[in-house]
Amino acid sequence: MSKVTFAVIAAGGAAAGAVATAALLSSKKDHIPTPTTTTTTTTVTGPPRPSVPAIPSPTSAARRPPVDPNGVFQYGFPGPVNDLRPAASLTSTYDRRTRNPAWVAEHITPESLANSNADRKHSVFVEDIAIPEMFRAKLKDYFRSGYDRGHQVPAADAKWSQEAMDDTFALSNMCPQQGDGFNRDYWAHFEDFCRRLTHSYPSVRIVTGPLYLPKREADGKWRVSYEVIGNPPNVAVPTHFFKVIFAEDGRLGGKVALGAFVLPNAVIPNSKPLTDFEVPIEAVERASGLEFAAKLAPERRRRLCQEVTCSTIVKEYAQRQKAFGKGQQVPLEKR
Amino acid sequence: MSKVTFAVIAAGGAAAGAVATAALLSSKKDHIPTPTTTTTTTTVTGPPRPSVPAIPSPTSAARRPPVDPNGVFQYGFPGPVNDLRPAASLTSTYDRRTRNPAWVAEHITPESLANSNADRKHSVFVEDIAIPEMFRAKLKDYFRSGYDRGHQVPAADAKWSQEAMDDTFALSNMCPQQGDGFNRDYWAHFEDFCRRLTHSYPSVRIVTGPLYLPKREADGKWRVSYEVIGNPPNVAVPTHFFKVIFAEDGRLGGKVALGAFVLPNAVIPNSKPLTDFEVPIEAVERASGLEFAAKLAPERRRRLCQEVTCSTIVKEYAQRQKAFGKGQQVPLEKR
Repeated sequence: MSKVTFAVIAAGGAAAGAVATAALLSSKKDHIPTPTTTTTTTTVTGPPRPSVPAIPSPTSAARRPPVDPNGVFQYGFPGPVNDLRPAASLTSTYDRRTRNPAWVAEHITPESLANSNADRKHSVFVEDIAIPEMFRAKLKDYFRSGYDRGHQVPAADAKWSQEAMDDTFALSNMCPQQGDGFNRDYWAHFEDFCRRLTHSYPSVRIVTGPLYLPKREADGKWRVSYEVIGNPPNVAVPTHFFKVIFAEDGRLGGKVALGAFVLPNAVIPNSKPLTDFEVPIEAVERASGLEFAAKLAPERRRRLCQEVTCSTIVKEYAQRQKAFGKGQQVPLEKR
Repeated sequence: MSKVTFAVIAAGGAAAGAVATAALLSSKKDHIPTPTTTTTTTTVTGPPRPSVPAIPSPTSAARRPPVDPNGVFQYGFPGPVNDLRPAASLTSTYDRRTRNPAWVAEHITPESLANSNADRKHSVFVEDIAIPEMFRAKLKDYFRSGYDRGHQVPAADAKWSQEAMDDTFALSNMCPQQGDGFNRDYWAHFEDFCRRLTHSYPSVRIVTGPLYLPKREADGKWRVSYEVIGNPPNVAVPTHFFKVIFAEDGRLGGKVALGAFVLPNAVIPNSKPLTDFEVPIEAVERASGLEFAAKLAPERRRRLCQEVTCSTIVKEYAQRQKAFGKGQQVPLEKR
């Protein structure tokens, strides 16, 4: 998908839409409840509610609704549930429908990357048993699927302890990724770019995750289309991946350089400039249904690719493997 | 999609999978955190955390992680957020990525349906301004899309007050539905079947929502494919819809007859038996990522279609319109 296409998808008639909506709702306002939109309910279920309505008192009968839609919570809260996972090297939420993470957040610093107390040879891919079995991505789903188990938080970003690195090997930190030309190549160079940001910033936060983007077909219609791997089919194969980068100046309430990137889950030539994949953060928000910087004041924001050169340094996979074999400190976070 | 196909998709090697997982994780157990999987976080953000690490005391330094992945919450909780909407006639959650509800729950009783204090002529379709503009389904998305604005909780189930009926007209209660042959026909007959359950049960709860199911393509791969309407594309067109029905006997802790149905968002001949679309509730759970009866004890469960005849009564659309014109009590919840 071209950058232009993505922009078209992500663009929204915000201003016009808001005005029209306000006009339409002016007579309806009172009828629309206003739940706090930032609230996701925990276990909404209270004690079981009797399905037998209580006998109404004569005075209240006129205003009491004859039904109780919330009563369904006596059987449990249906969800969606986000399976928040706070681990040493990452924090993630999970999408139980696609069996992919919704997003995975990490934090790297010059100090954290300087430590090398872990080796990926000692880590193994594991299913995340905190996810209910019915919604869990399985090792067998990836087996012979043609896709890599693509780390969202790279193993190489968690070398400061073996446990921290092991945390990155749970399948709740994985998405099916094109191997050659992407996970093992361009995407790996992109991850390396993120690590190099610690040369310029004392603290870097990165949120990574999958996207399922529509493309325009011959009939003019937009269509989302993605493979589902496993037998029976279980794990969605994202069409794209995003990274939202917060490069912090290290001062409390200081400046934050923001960068947002969207890359297709496909072979990308190494010659392609990284800036080709830079997008407005709002575009990632629209596409993902997530919000990344709602509480970051505009005056604190800077644009990452204006402060640093956003470009990849290509290290061929074979070279990296060779270097790794010699015990050099070249990241080899890919297989 | 045939019932067999759906069963294949929905089936999971639960037992085998669990054993394999347990074996794989036996040495890893300590590394996988166990967040309470039923917990969805509200606003996780506390006060902003300084990105400058506090100076570690000598004794704690060895065990303190060098990074703080949760620190990203200083910029806001990314989501997913479920936009829980408790209204008089329905309770719903919303999927900000697909711009469709995740599910909409309702409650109907013989008494609630006996009341007729509302007329859909006085209700108008409205955008749900409780959903942030960026993630909101818009009236213009549906305009000339070729799809109906399909009520998930039908207007005809909320005739007990005009306000209750108006609540069903928010776009957060709508999905794009095939009109002729589905929303205006088979699906309407199915909704009528649900209402008729109140002849047999004093209290009926129904959870309705969209699905995006994969189908097997010529190359043997499973693929989810759905249209997105709007310009720019905004609202996903579900491939299927589900209803999970709880028919209650009216006693506290009493028996609950469960029925689960999955119908394609497509023309369905009226001759098709409703039982062709009956599926195990677990199949809807796997497909949707939701859980419907986690807290309903097995001994309280009955199978709806064993207790009542699950079948539709066909009333042609033209007939229903005519009847409606004469002021008869024939539900006309479709346009």
